[in-house]
Amino acid sequence: MSANRLARAKPLGQYLAALNNPSAASAGRRRFVGSTAVRKSIAGNGQEHHHQHRKASTWSVSGVAGVAMTAGLLGWGLSELRHGGFPGAVLFDSGFSTPRYASMREMEQALKEIRQEIGEGEDIISTDPDDLHAHGYSEWSTTNPKGLPVAVAYPRSTEQVSMIARICHKYRVPVIPYSGGSSLEGNFSAPFGGISVDFAYMDRIVQFNKNDMDVVVQPSIGWQDLNEQLAKMGSGLFFPIDPGPSAKIGGMIGTNCSGTNAVKYGTMKDWVINLTVVLADGTVIKTRRRPRKSSAGYNLNGLFVGSEGTLGLVTEATLKLTVIPEEFSVAVVTFPSIRDAASAAAEVMQTGIPVAAMEIMDEVQMKVVNMGGATAPRVWKELPTLFFKFSGTKAGVKENISLVQAITKSNRGSNFEFAKDAREQKLLWSARKESLWSMLALRKEGEEVWSTDVAVPFSRLADIIEVSKKEMDDLGLFASILGHIGDGNFHESIIYNRRDKAERDKVETCVKNMVKRALEMEGTCTGEHSIGWGKKESLLWEVGPDTLGVMKAIKAALDPNWIMNPGKIFDRTD
Amino acid sequence: MSANRLARAKPLGQYLAALNNPSAASAGRRRFVGSTAVRKSIAGNGQEHHHQHRKASTWSVSGVAGVAMTAGLLGWGLSELRHGGFPGAVLFDSGFSTPRYASMREMEQALKEIRQEIGEGEDIISTDPDDLHAHGYSEWSTTNPKGLPVAVAYPRSTEQVSMIARICHKYRVPVIPYSGGSSLEGNFSAPFGGISVDFAYMDRIVQFNKNDMDVVVQPSIGWQDLNEQLAKMGSGLFFPIDPGPSAKIGGMIGTNCSGTNAVKYGTMKDWVINLTVVLADGTVIKTRRRPRKSSAGYNLNGLFVGSEGTLGLVTEATLKLTVIPEEFSVAVVTFPSIRDAASAAAEVMQTGIPVAAMEIMDEVQMKVVNMGGATAPRVWKELPTLFFKFSGTKAGVKENISLVQAITKSNRGSNFEFAKDAREQKLLWSARKESLWSMLALRKEGEEVWSTDVAVPFSRLADIIEVSKKEMDDLGLFASILGHIGDGNFHESIIYNRRDKAERDKVETCVKNMVKRALEMEGTCTGEHSIGWGKKESLLWEVGPDTLGVMKAIKAALDPNWIMNPGKIFDRTD
Repeated sequence: MSANRLARAKPLGQYLAALNNPSAASAGRRRFVGSTAVRKSIAGNGQEHHHQHRKASTWSVSGVAGVAMTAGLLGWGLSELRHGGFPGAVLFDSGFSTPRYASMREMEQALKEIRQEIGEGEDIISTDPDDLHAHGYSEWSTTNPKGLPVAVAYPRSTEQVSMIARICHKYRVPVIPYSGGSSLEGNFSAPFGGISVDFAYMDRIVQFNKNDMDVVVQPSIGWQDLNEQLAKMGSGLFFPIDPGPSAKIGGMIGTNCSGTNAVKYGTMKDWVINLTVVLADGTVIKTRRRPRKSSAGYNLNGLFVGSEGTLGLVTEATLKLTVIPEEFSVAVVTFPSIRDAASAAAEVMQTGIPVAAMEIMDEVQMKVVNMGGATAPRVWKELPTLFFKFSGTKAGVKENISLVQAITKSNRGSNFEFAKDAREQKLLWSARKESLWSMLALRKEGEEVWSTDVAVPFSRLADIIEVSKKEMDDLGLFASILGHIGDGNFHESIIYNRRDKAERDKVETCVKNMVKRALEMEGTCTGEHSIGWGKKESLLWEVGPDTLGVMKAIKAALDPNWIMNPGKIFDRTD
Repeated sequence: MSANRLARAKPLGQYLAALNNPSAASAGRRRFVGSTAVRKSIAGNGQEHHHQHRKASTWSVSGVAGVAMTAGLLGWGLSELRHGGFPGAVLFDSGFSTPRYASMREMEQALKEIRQEIGEGEDIISTDPDDLHAHGYSEWSTTNPKGLPVAVAYPRSTEQVSMIARICHKYRVPVIPYSGGSSLEGNFSAPFGGISVDFAYMDRIVQFNKNDMDVVVQPSIGWQDLNEQLAKMGSGLFFPIDPGPSAKIGGMIGTNCSGTNAVKYGTMKDWVINLTVVLADGTVIKTRRRPRKSSAGYNLNGLFVGSEGTLGLVTEATLKLTVIPEEFSVAVVTFPSIRDAASAAAEVMQTGIPVAAMEIMDEVQMKVVNMGGATAPRVWKELPTLFFKFSGTKAGVKENISLVQAITKSNRGSNFEFAKDAREQKLLWSARKESLWSMLALRKEGEEVWSTDVAVPFSRLADIIEVSKKEMDDLGLFASILGHIGDGNFHESIIYNRRDKAERDKVETCVKNMVKRALEMEGTCTGEHSIGWGKKESLLWEVGPDTLGVMKAIKAALDPNWIMNPGKIFDRTD
């Protein structure tokens, strides 16, 4: 089925068929206000008149004309309604409050057909309750909507994914992609039921093009696993985007993620050469061939990356790779205040020193690491601290370290330490590495960590960190700051008791205040975690209804049935 | 007007109005097969029946039901037709062969309304024939479709652009954006007439955020002008994307351009923080605020960049800037063959040496430079030559030069020269700088230069250059090669006599063969020039109808009247 047919959705054919076939008609009935009434009225009239067939009638011509006009307008109106054609309605019937999804019976029918298409051999569908829970409820996320998928599918190939989408499209079964499951905003939740498509069996390197410095992979390969395999091959190449360690390529694409390496290497979208995507109706497309750069047509790579599975399912990706630098180092330096640390960081950026990473941790986060003991016997000074990574040639790294040292010194930095070998690199970086774990380890029974991220223009980072910290302190909340300061992106982690509604509400308010503050500073409500379920309101605040309307128009064009990961990024209703 | 209303297009209201108002109805009449017939038949029936009003009729109920059903279905069908709803038709009436555009009278009415809205003061509309020609015919492009705009508008603000788009949307007047006019594929041509929107009066820096290393600009600022202004301010920052010298930001965004700096700095899309865009119906949106990175919702920056004005008009852009490196140098080295040069280049990339540029020029191009005399008294060796730019710290540049020198030596390179100061940099780079001019200078009376660009995976560049050169030689065509070899992107310039149809056809065939070859090698039909009018067929070959269908679905969602730069990238018909 071509992508043009995606947009066509054979509307007239469907509805003519529905008029002729009442059981198919019922599939459409709930969807359109008035349709049942109209259909009944046409059918009803016919039946009534049929009974009266033998009686000659005294219909005047104006009466007939009136009937004709009414019927004509009703027919017209019905179609316009379906196309959302009332003044004020959005074209894709997004004027209706919620999309209509498959009933339980229809979902079961869809599963049955999927199994039939698979035929003999391994059953790729699971309805095991633990599986369903694991694929609908995220331990990592602060917000999890109610609802679970009705099944988890474990496809082995793009063809199987295409078949699943095709059948789900037919029955309006939601489809939710799943790879690493480490997202933070309820991204893989299934608030409308449906089928979770877990790419666990699609986790390989498909093709490694060493001389072109690119690699073709499947969605459930982890970035750390990918780099290990590339290292094993002695390729001298690596994939430089480094989010949470358990993240996999599919989700990394969905969220346009990044990590500590972003200041040097950018974000996920900068590393995608092409994507193979299964669209909402099962059509398989490939966004591009394999050139390193292109100006040919619309940048579909850039559109699908960060679209969180709402525009289609990525089943294969060609990623750029880069050369593993010859030399590495790490440096750590403390400051009397966040503002001093931020000034030093600003100067490093404005001097153009090509640091490989630049991270800030506040005094609370340093204390948390000490309390967790993960880096024992090392005990860290409990002060705002900058962590640097350096990479490049030997001479380049040496030069960068000394330039950075001079800058930190002139910004009241002290205790500057840098690593002279791999062992020291590991030790010095360990506080940064163990920061999240250490925070989690502090939780008492019933406590959770709310982790959120915003990004602001670089010059405002010190402001927003200070104001946010003060708000936490004033409210008596325990929170730590960790930031990719080179990108103006920081994470706040707040401990709260999930059974204490008042406390949870306090934290939620704080987080929302932080988002609003970031937006006032011309920032974004999420630097790398993405929107998911949890930040839909924030996205609307951030870009406003008109820009959000453009996103929705695109969504509606590619997924008119709104089955691709519904409830994420935005809802169809205004 | 919100973007939702963009998608709504108030269709029912329009058509109910049309039914009531025959003059408005005529505006729609030409568009829909059968509409006149239907409208006449409904009107006709009414009139007929009216005459017969006084006679009692013997309409049976089944007869009335039949009329009702027919009228209902006709009404339905009429609407479906309008929405392209026949099975096999694309949703946005793209099943019709061409979009319907304004008649001359309607275009004049649109101009009149635009002038009325501007009111007192400077007239922003020009209908001067020279102006129209300059804004419809591109000296740079090899293909120029017939047709010219009916007017050129010179808006001074986003508000004026919004008003122009709103009025054009109402009358279905094509809108074609214009900034530098240096595009190569007939990108600003007006095959369907319409209004050229020239941003000549919108050429300023709006806001410079030094500490955030970004700048807000209007579309008609040139990149060289931008950099001069940044230098004058002593900012230490520059914008690193370097296409043809006369290019301006608006067109650079439209084409996702790049230049010699791409190997280090990437392409236009990597440098856009946000865009202010006027959509097809006049709605103004801003894609994002001002964070350095974001994962908030769809990446609309990435979508509008490279969309060649077909999705909306960019009236403002926030661009990232980067630090001007401390030190620069240039190196030049010759090779016995293209293949040797390509091997050396490959090794440089695979070693990860961060060259600032790496360009290849074949022996013909070197000869052309000598013949042009622009770099006299220097005479170049007429051999395949690599040109390198280096930038960074003093120590880094020194190290890079010696690493590159060693690699070129081991790949049969000779005559390695590198610059020791700014004067030598200029001298050594001059051959590269003067290459296009030198080619143009060779033209005899009636001759043109066909310039095209493709990109292939890095490992195939030597192959495609060799095969293409051989084809040119075999056909007796004079052609030179120039390439951004670090990106696998190369330009072929071919001289031909425009009055010799056979020769022009030969060249066209060669260029198409080169594109097909590039695609077979998994490349792209354009590395940086974009599609425009001239490469639509190539784009279809490159991505296929399904992926093209996704692009069209997005286009149709954001510009249902198909007025934004029509005839570029793809056509509405299949």
